[in-house]
Amino acid sequence: METISLQLGAREYPIHIGSGVLRNTKLLTKTISAKQVLVVSNEVVAPLYLDQFMAALPQDTAQFILPDGEQHKTLATFSKIIDHLIELRFHRDATLVALGGGVVGDVAGFAAAAYQRGIDFVQAPTTLLAQVDSSVGGKTAVNHPHAKNMIGAFYQPTAVLTDIATLATLPARELSAGLAEVIKYGLIVDPEFYEWLESNIGLLRSLDDTAMTQAIRRCCEIKANIVAEDEREHGRRALLNLGHTFGHALEAIGGYGHWLHGEAVAIGTSMAARLSQHLGNISVADCERIDALLQRAGLPVRAAEIDPDEMLGAMQLDKKAGSGGLRLILIDQIGSASICAAPSADVLRAIIAEHCES
Amino acid sequence: METISLQLGAREYPIHIGSGVLRNTKLLTKTISAKQVLVVSNEVVAPLYLDQFMAALPQDTAQFILPDGEQHKTLATFSKIIDHLIELRFHRDATLVALGGGVVGDVAGFAAAAYQRGIDFVQAPTTLLAQVDSSVGGKTAVNHPHAKNMIGAFYQPTAVLTDIATLATLPARELSAGLAEVIKYGLIVDPEFYEWLESNIGLLRSLDDTAMTQAIRRCCEIKANIVAEDEREHGRRALLNLGHTFGHALEAIGGYGHWLHGEAVAIGTSMAARLSQHLGNISVADCERIDALLQRAGLPVRAAEIDPDEMLGAMQLDKKAGSGGLRLILIDQIGSASICAAPSADVLRAIIAEHCES
Repeated sequence: METISLQLGAREYPIHIGSGVLRNTKLLTKTISAKQVLVVSNEVVAPLYLDQFMAALPQDTAQFILPDGEQHKTLATFSKIIDHLIELRFHRDATLVALGGGVVGDVAGFAAAAYQRGIDFVQAPTTLLAQVDSSVGGKTAVNHPHAKNMIGAFYQPTAVLTDIATLATLPARELSAGLAEVIKYGLIVDPEFYEWLESNIGLLRSLDDTAMTQAIRRCCEIKANIVAEDEREHGRRALLNLGHTFGHALEAIGGYGHWLHGEAVAIGTSMAARLSQHLGNISVADCERIDALLQRAGLPVRAAEIDPDEMLGAMQLDKKAGSGGLRLILIDQIGSASICAAPSADVLRAIIAEHCES
Repeated sequence: METISLQLGAREYPIHIGSGVLRNTKLLTKTISAKQVLVVSNEVVAPLYLDQFMAALPQDTAQFILPDGEQHKTLATFSKIIDHLIELRFHRDATLVALGGGVVGDVAGFAAAAYQRGIDFVQAPTTLLAQVDSSVGGKTAVNHPHAKNMIGAFYQPTAVLTDIATLATLPARELSAGLAEVIKYGLIVDPEFYEWLESNIGLLRSLDDTAMTQAIRRCCEIKANIVAEDEREHGRRALLNLGHTFGHALEAIGGYGHWLHGEAVAIGTSMAARLSQHLGNISVADCERIDALLQRAGLPVRAAEIDPDEMLGAMQLDKKAGSGGLRLILIDQIGSASICAAPSADVLRAIIAEHCES
């Protein structure tokens, strides 16, 4: 097991990465000491890992099982978790654990942030996407029917428990979705890691333990460094949104649940690359190199049947937009990115249209 | 106009207190500089002050009017404010202003905290209770059907605009409710202020400008000092809850809206005083002195038709309860208080029964 420490001023919390973390009673006893513990999971993850996890915890533990899927990342689900905490008469020194993917972590995290104005929260991510991205950094949220992640809180967990053994049961499509975020880290800040990914993408897709631990550790290190520097995304943290303004708009117009988040981010990253090339930052060959790695990771880089104008409208509502207008993350070169004001709607429309398969 | 500064680590914000603050264009221009501004108010306050306030703001401003009353401090109202922000396509550099009493400030504050994980928030409290208590210190929340303030955030405003001219239209019953919190500050930390209140309660009830400014300023100073020391209520901030565990339970079993918050706190303070006397901290004469000041402020100190067992049940759910059991604030002497484990249910039941009028 490897442990990374995320430093945020007075607060500091560990990210434990390894195989078997969720069965490690000694670690769990040290990490979760509250008398009242609620584990929030979903109907897919719970049958696989909940019993063994609860058996490894020292205290009696309550559970709350959500339906699976991004379409349940709503204020209504948040409200049900709160109702359950109230029914259990949980106090403010209780701990809430999110066992599952990004949806479980985001909605349970917002519930932990809001219940009695904040109770302790532990992330136990079971998807690659959650392990490398959503469980690290303290962003919690639910979706609004018209826009993603619009209602939430910056709320740091007290610990992250990343058990890579859980990836064995992850559908290949979701593993690929997680790799979209892994590739993103290389693209925005680490050219060596990007090249390493080009050499090792096959090992990662076949769940090689050593390669997977190395990749997750590097992603968490990169994210931890950026978040420690800019917790509330006033500056550099925005780089983590490469491909996400396009991606969120794709998710919104496709209906949440049509694309996996990572798939939408992959198409969005391809769009961001193409825009960067259009603006003279990178070459056509770089774009092809990026598309190639995304595709080797099992990800789409084109979308069928999107209406560019509908997508442009959805992009305007993205949280990354300020009063000064929409801002996007561009690739300066592979391994380096920056924040820029968006170009004209015509340019964006052309980039989007290029990425329609039909 | 007087200005107090609330210091919270890297964050610091001003509380401006005076007559005419909400018509002071120069101050408002300096305080609210966002391009996108939404003023949340309610159906009682808006007809009185919204037009003059919006006219004094330099920018075009949107408004959202809530129905009046604690029964609307719900997740549903929170959700409507969020929907409105989405409809307006507000960005994360927008500002939300709460113009009204504690309910408006609490629910709008939580919406500001959660919308895009936090936008700027300005409090413009128009009731005495909001001016001396709920607008200062960053507690925001909505009620759960079964317990008060269970869903919320610690979220500091960027400024507080306290216009004492608004008290001229405040119903006498609500002015008295605000005085319950004013008296509380004297009881918990400032014996001189308590004595000053005994001499000046009449002037405050007749809205004497000088006395009112002095009282509000002193309350804000006391609260600012305590909050600066203990923002998240791990320790001393709990003293501010004198009478509130009893009071919240009274509100819950009476149905929100039956008692004003300050009235429930007044009865709760009388109960806390009686409990302190029962435990040997203060004398029967002290209890009578406290009841007398509350009554001279126009407040109830007894409740008709409460079921002590129902009230005990509601107290167990109070946020002040930890896994170690219910904790209460006791009066050590007039002007000094401390946090203590609650005594047995029998003792509490007897204290509650004593405060039933029937």
